[in-house]
Amino acid sequence: MHDYSTATAGHFYAVGVGPGAPDLLTLRAARLIGTADVILAPKSAASDDCLALATVQPHLRPERQEIVEHVYRMRRDPAGTAACWRVAAELVAERCRAGKSVVQITLGDPLVYSTSTYLMAQLVNGLLSPDQIHVVSGISAFQAAAALFAAPLTVQEDRLTLMPATDLDAVAAALDRCETLVLYKAGKKIRALADLLESRGLLGVARLVCYAEQNGRQFVSTDLRAAQDGLHGYMATVIIHLGRKEWDRGATPGSPADG
Amino acid sequence: MHDYSTATAGHFYAVGVGPGAPDLLTLRAARLIGTADVILAPKSAASDDCLALATVQPHLRPERQEIVEHVYRMRRDPAGTAACWRVAAELVAERCRAGKSVVQITLGDPLVYSTSTYLMAQLVNGLLSPDQIHVVSGISAFQAAAALFAAPLTVQEDRLTLMPATDLDAVAAALDRCETLVLYKAGKKIRALADLLESRGLLGVARLVCYAEQNGRQFVSTDLRAAQDGLHGYMATVIIHLGRKEWDRGATPGSPADG
Repeated sequence: MHDYSTATAGHFYAVGVGPGAPDLLTLRAARLIGTADVILAPKSAASDDCLALATVQPHLRPERQEIVEHVYRMRRDPAGTAACWRVAAELVAERCRAGKSVVQITLGDPLVYSTSTYLMAQLVNGLLSPDQIHVVSGISAFQAAAALFAAPLTVQEDRLTLMPATDLDAVAAALDRCETLVLYKAGKKIRALADLLESRGLLGVARLVCYAEQNGRQFVSTDLRAAQDGLHGYMATVIIHLGRKEWDRGATPGSPADG
Repeated sequence: MHDYSTATAGHFYAVGVGPGAPDLLTLRAARLIGTADVILAPKSAASDDCLALATVQPHLRPERQEIVEHVYRMRRDPAGTAACWRVAAELVAERCRAGKSVVQITLGDPLVYSTSTYLMAQLVNGLLSPDQIHVVSGISAFQAAAALFAAPLTVQEDRLTLMPATDLDAVAAALDRCETLVLYKAGKKIRALADLLESRGLLGVARLVCYAEQNGRQFVSTDLRAAQDGLHGYMATVIIHLGRKEWDRGATPGSPADG
């Protein structure tokens, strides 16, 4: 197994920094961030600040680290997306060839709806060998959101499905096929989603969490009707606990999920 | 938001310690484990050692902490399960009433197929108030398993489904309804699962990871045919990257998932 106690010269690390609270970083992430020569921080063109960078602030060593903010656009344009991340990937590869260690920081987990995917796709496309590329898992927003309610996501044979809320027909289909459904990017669809859930008698088992573990921004609600479309932006997570299986009642009497 | 810098007197924390590597704990978990008065470590009756306890060893303060191992059986017996966890819950509640702070450590994430569910179900059943109960997310095995391959779990509109491999009919149905399927507890079904995947032409996109991030035990394979039933026990995770959507090829050319 790779030695993660310090960042290794010539290696790249996609590091998940969790949902935004500085103490929800893993020890491995903190050590790599503290010892890397280069920190790459992707920043959406739509936002003023880089939340991932703020999250890891206590571990940065700016006096001896190069900190690069890479601005990207969120768009449905495969060629444009690839070109944008190619620029960042070439910077990463150049630093690695020069014997530097590079950490890309990313909110949540680098493999769950993350910009790391685009960067790594370019890196393995002729720039770095797979053994120079490492991924360090982070707490994803759905985990942090569920933790706020202390309500189980899965028990025994439960199926958990995680998907974006962008296509409500797909959401409606998924409601029939799992015991817990987690929706990301639900901010702009809250009203239509509430209609769908009400028509299925499921409004009472849905919870909304926006900006989980982001200090001063966190918003939690068990009433989707009270939340307005767009108000809570991109980082809105809805957890729907369908709990249709008998063990849900049998094995966990009085569980938080029943409350 | 609750202050997680130290464990608070009279409070209970279900703390995920990640897949087994000591450095995949979050900073929050490490601080709570280091400052709690009581550490409760569930231990399966079927195993000799408590892996969660070994994982957090560097943070324990045995000279001033009470460390309680709680032995449980894995069984389909709701009443027996409830009774077993009632005993542990009463101990937790008694310590909290005495002004102690209590941390239950659990592998992975406390809300994803975890014993914490059973303990918390008892705690909220008349023993503690919800505001005394906290959950600290941990890296789940599927995240650590995916990280070993640096292959994205979800991109753009992808649906991720997580379920146990115990019912292969349910697994077969799920294959049609998500872009990435993650199966837990796959150890005893590897051969039948390989047959199912082969019949769908999916053997080549399945990866097996056992004991991810457990030093000396980790086993990784892209050939399910080479793995024998039962050999890798309970902690076997299979990740099947169906990747049927066009963005999978368009937006991530040459991604690790294609390799």
